[in-house]
Amino acid sequence: MYGVEVLTLFPEMVSGYLGASILGKAREKGLLGVTVTHIRDYAEGKHRVTDDAPYGGGAGMVMKPEPLVAAIEAARARAPQGTRALLMSPRGPVFDQARARELAREPGLILVCGRYEGVDERVIPYLDGELSLGDFILTGGEVAALAVVDAVARLLPGVLGNVESSVSESFEEGLLEYPHYTRPPVFRGAEVPAVLQSGDHARIARWRRWKALQLTRARRPELFARLALGPADLKLLAKREEEL
Amino acid sequence: MYGVEVLTLFPEMVSGYLGASILGKAREKGLLGVTVTHIRDYAEGKHRVTDDAPYGGGAGMVMKPEPLVAAIEAARARAPQGTRALLMSPRGPVFDQARARELAREPGLILVCGRYEGVDERVIPYLDGELSLGDFILTGGEVAALAVVDAVARLLPGVLGNVESSVSESFEEGLLEYPHYTRPPVFRGAEVPAVLQSGDHARIARWRRWKALQLTRARRPELFARLALGPADLKLLAKREEEL
Repeated sequence: MYGVEVLTLFPEMVSGYLGASILGKAREKGLLGVTVTHIRDYAEGKHRVTDDAPYGGGAGMVMKPEPLVAAIEAARARAPQGTRALLMSPRGPVFDQARARELAREPGLILVCGRYEGVDERVIPYLDGELSLGDFILTGGEVAALAVVDAVARLLPGVLGNVESSVSESFEEGLLEYPHYTRPPVFRGAEVPAVLQSGDHARIARWRRWKALQLTRARRPELFARLALGPADLKLLAKREEEL
Repeated sequence: MYGVEVLTLFPEMVSGYLGASILGKAREKGLLGVTVTHIRDYAEGKHRVTDDAPYGGGAGMVMKPEPLVAAIEAARARAPQGTRALLMSPRGPVFDQARARELAREPGLILVCGRYEGVDERVIPYLDGELSLGDFILTGGEVAALAVVDAVARLLPGVLGNVESSVSESFEEGLLEYPHYTRPPVFRGAEVPAVLQSGDHARIARWRRWKALQLTRARRPELFARLALGPADLKLLAKREEEL
């Protein structure tokens, strides 16, 4: 079982998400273990203070090193050997699908959620690294941790059915997904493309591949430029839609 | 009041997060209104079916167009004029801080969460666009919507205190944040840098700027390359830490 531990000052922000839908089912099936740890439980003194004013002045509060490091060490002691502890932080490398695959191959994951202005820098040596969800500022690391747990958990064996797990293969190889259609055949005057109703599986596969390539080139030229396209894809791309 | 409406098949995945911490307080203060709408409430028939098999075959289920479009239209009717409806989808442009600022200036926001393989393509004309959280695959759009709401809400006037709102200015201009320290002055043998205890505010500001520039150059060279640095920053960057 893959074990995730989330360290946070706001357990109620993450518990609902981690108990619902596919993640909830993965936990019921014993494929995913989730522990949500309140950092405050590792703070000392009557008031269990977890933050304090920054040295050098300035806005906001900084998370104190003692409770955080104590919580990280306790999580490490509970986790299998080799489990990494990562701080969700805009200073880390930006999370992507390659990173999700890498993390899914490990025995588990400890994710530390920062709040307020940031965490005391002296916590960093007690972590295995930092990880960013993207180039935007959140009120804390909680939602970033949820996204990482979600993206990693769906890659674990058995979490998605065999059928579903082949889904999104196109994105796995750096392509945006082709368009999807389901019933009804006509919705407010808009028809499902005839090719998808043709029963010609080779032609459907060609159409979907062509759509994925075109979409990626039009919307994400920098992803498209990184694709290593073979001769079949290059030939396909040169066609117009009606030639497929 | 800025109004956010989230359309989802799993309201329990988003409600906890949206009620806690800074977002919960913003709602209590009447600065942020949040409506979580169950897409299933807009599905017809005894079984209120929201998904069906894809035309053309393949894995997974596709979200049907009728309930989704009905839910989007109902949300638009409730929202102020000019509120955009966006689908959380890996095919959209990637969310970043500039997009967060842009969305925070609008009257509100309707976010549609896809699940399963994807949504019927014929839903797209009823939306104002798609938005991606990053280049990874999630089990659904819910956590992406939470991240967008969080990043946008913290920019709304009054949501963060005046003091806190100046926080992270460095990231706002495309720089990673400088390191933070709080008490104790010595943690397990590691000291707070002397400069931060010097009381010399000009020197502290220089040190922090230097650290932010160095961190950005080392960790995110592509962000660093986009900075328009003035002569003062260039001079600062040329110094060694002990010369600051």
